[in-house]
Amino acid sequence: MQYSHELEFKVRDYECDMQAVVNNGVYQNYLEHARHEFLQAHGINFADMTDAGINLVVIRAELDYKKSLVSNDRFVIRSRLRQVSKIRFEFQQDIFRLPDECLMLAARIIGTSVNENGRPYLPEALARLFDNG
Amino acid sequence: MQYSHELEFKVRDYECDMQAVVNNGVYQNYLEHARHEFLQAHGINFADMTDAGINLVVIRAELDYKKSLVSNDRFVIRSRLRQVSKIRFEFQQDIFRLPDECLMLAARIIGTSVNENGRPYLPEALARLFDNG
Amino acid sequence: MQYSHELEFKVRDYECDMQAVVNNGVYQNYLEHARHEFLQAHGINFADMTDAGINLVVIRAELDYKKSLVSNDRFVIRSRLRQVSKIRFEFQQDIFRLPDECLMLAARIIGTSVNENGRPYLPEALARLFDNG
Amino acid sequence: MQYSHELEFKVRDYECDMQAVVNNGVYQNYLEHARHEFLQAHGINFADMTDAGINLVVIRAELDYKKSLVSNDRFVIRSRLRQVSKIRFEFQQDIFRLPDECLMLAARIIGTSVNENGRPYLPEALARLFDNG
Repeated sequence: MQYSHELEFKVRDYECDMQAVVNNGVYQNYLEHARHEFLQAHGINFADMTDAGINLVVIRAELDYKKSLVSNDRFVIRSRLRQVSKIRFEFQQDIFRLPDECLMLAARIIGTSVNENGRPYLPEALARLFDNG
Repeated sequence: MQYSHELEFKVRDYECDMQAVVNNGVYQNYLEHARHEFLQAHGINFADMTDAGINLVVIRAELDYKKSLVSNDRFVIRSRLRQVSKIRFEFQQDIFRLPDECLMLAARIIGTSVNENGRPYLPEALARLFDNG
Repeated sequence: MQYSHELEFKVRDYECDMQAVVNNGVYQNYLEHARHEFLQAHGINFADMTDAGINLVVIRAELDYKKSLVSNDRFVIRSRLRQVSKIRFEFQQDIFRLPDECLMLAARIIGTSVNENGRPYLPEALARLFDNG
Repeated sequence: MQYSHELEFKVRDYECDMQAVVNNGVYQNYLEHARHEFLQAHGINFADMTDAGINLVVIRAELDYKKSLVSNDRFVIRSRLRQVSKIRFEFQQDIFRLPDECLMLAARIIGTSVNENGRPYLPEALARLFDNG
């Protein structure tokens, strides 16, 4: 698969739970950060959009947990974005441990964009991103 | 649908992000807590199992975000558990806002159980739970 | 000591780290939630204030960790509020495990209130609270 | 002041709350990660110590919040460690925003080390670190 963005992380110990692995919920944090950095790299700043009353929202998340990240692991999130309907987009995001490139988690995150009134609204900058994606 | 467990929560402000809604990742925390309380109510203590070298692990999560919880919202998580294969189980977990009972999130969490060597292992207490489920 | 508010909690397993105790950082989350509920009980809604451009901010936190909360623990946070200068206030917040009332953490949280321009501004409702406190 | 370790971070949007600033509790997460990386850089692995039954624990935290980190901020945590009693050590940790080097938070974290029975126990590797510190 062709990814269009990648971001490296290192596990932080407070992200690990009593099983001594990264807690399930933390992966969604990682994925969100990678998506926002992806957008930022394409000139879309999440905080500015929120300020402007445009909310990018997740409507469905599918996460396949393959293996557990543990303390001290380095990993990379590789992402790609595609439009799935007039106002919906999908991020495919995979997490690979470094340096062995083992697939740890595969995710599909479906999102949309709404304006201040909660109505679907696709900002120009985001639409352009799909064309390029 | 018939649920076999329910747990009430109130949104905490630190769980809300700059969009002033509960952050996407936090719902997985809520769901995990509801599952552990579900197990506890049936005599299965998550920490004790972890101590005993038995790890309950999530292998797939599907979350449909319907509406956003906000500051001060009260809500309930209703859960039900069923066995989906010899060693896999599925929690269906739905989040309803209170008091209006509006469905906020619907989730399917597939899990399994592994022993200290990472091999599938279904403890007696859990197997019994499926029979009752 | 005379407390003017108390709130009961139960440890959630995702709050525990690889030492199988509640992670140090989580206590600040607990304390924040207890402060916001304290304010709410006195008619001050944190989200509404934020919307109105008034930010309650913490300027100093002192936390004495006495004992560690663990999985399944129930506990109560007891709080009291006093004014320490014209525009500063201090929450004293103590965490007691239940049912044995063992002191787990003692905290002093100093805060102030600023308006949209970042200037100190003590809203009427908060000033009234000090009088009553 | 002479620091003996530094670590760079970037704010992640899920760390920001409805005030659109990094939530107070998150700073303790940042500081913990910086401490563990500090120890790691000196050959002390936190997870390995925990496995070996030696728990490094925080007994007091003092945090002075100077200014708020916001979305997209880069920052550095600079740390130094000194022994304050036979079995207690103190991390001084300061957070500076980049690139303007503005001081955002100043912290003192007092810790100790206990063995499996909860008794104070200073492992050799840690004692050596104080000598070098």
